[in-house]
Amino acid sequence: MNFNLPHAATILARTPGTLQVLLGDLPEPWVRATEGPDTFSPFDVVGHLIDGEETDWIPRAKIILAGGPDPRFEPYDRFRHRTRNVGRTFASLLPEFAGLRAGNLELLRSWQLTPAMLELPGVHPSLGRVTLSQLLAGWVVHDLGHIAQVTRVLAKQYRGAVGPWVPYLPILTDHEKPRS
Amino acid sequence: MNFNLPHAATILARTPGTLQVLLGDLPEPWVRATEGPDTFSPFDVVGHLIDGEETDWIPRAKIILAGGPDPRFEPYDRFRHRTRNVGRTFASLLPEFAGLRAGNLELLRSWQLTPAMLELPGVHPSLGRVTLSQLLAGWVVHDLGHIAQVTRVLAKQYRGAVGPWVPYLPILTDHEKPRS
Repeated sequence: MNFNLPHAATILARTPGTLQVLLGDLPEPWVRATEGPDTFSPFDVVGHLIDGEETDWIPRAKIILAGGPDPRFEPYDRFRHRTRNVGRTFASLLPEFAGLRAGNLELLRSWQLTPAMLELPGVHPSLGRVTLSQLLAGWVVHDLGHIAQVTRVLAKQYRGAVGPWVPYLPILTDHEKPRS
Repeated sequence: MNFNLPHAATILARTPGTLQVLLGDLPEPWVRATEGPDTFSPFDVVGHLIDGEETDWIPRAKIILAGGPDPRFEPYDRFRHRTRNVGRTFASLLPEFAGLRAGNLELLRSWQLTPAMLELPGVHPSLGRVTLSQLLAGWVVHDLGHIAQVTRVLAKQYRGAVGPWVPYLPILTDHEKPRS
């Protein structure tokens, strides 16, 4: 499927609400559950998505749109949230993410991106040349990947509880060597 | 984590709303997208979840609670929805699922299940002896697995659009040999 800006924006707009319905007011053991050492809990995922709003997708789009001679992105710190959100409650992170996302989507709309602008290049620190539309498509896929991750982390807490059902529930054995 | 009936019920209650926020009013190409031949689109997943409400989890719980001499489950038809939902709109399936789920959770609560009742056995046609708590835990994990599946199917539509980002977005290469 080709990149489509209005479609991408509608998917991006849904992520905070999806996470609110899925995770809002869930008992704390579920919110803090992981799939193993050094992997993300739902709390960590929302923190990571907040980092993305503040330091990744839109800041990188701005670098591309600035059109300078070296549109190189800042490296992204995947673990910034671990120090940023010490002492925070999960209930406070969800609306913070929603607010940041809404503001970023408003900014995105205000740019009135044309097909030519979507082909403008940036330089990723390890992937090299990328276009604005690839960056925005990556933002969409990144959201969806983390929604899938959160549901997998929740599901794995019941791996023992389902007894003999494990082979019929493939999510329980997805990412046996989990990535954060 | 041990099975906990109130926790399980709160997760089960969230699935229709999660899918409504994630998928409601999405453009048709996304709703009908798959990850390959003979795999489920979001439309198919909601149809499959409706089948689960009508023919799988609660009907099997009733067989267990009836306490007969042979508490054997009916085999479950994973593809019933394909004929059932021909000609249906996606917009009509989501509230149908929500209504069926709400009714089933009300019935579940009305049973006032005790720890002893949760240990009552049923016989799965291929997995053999299972308990009521394993069945209910399986229901929870099944929901979460299909939410993850739906997000993966959506994400894969942008596999080409993300360009060089593919190796950084593992959801794009999950289930390369997809299961329905």
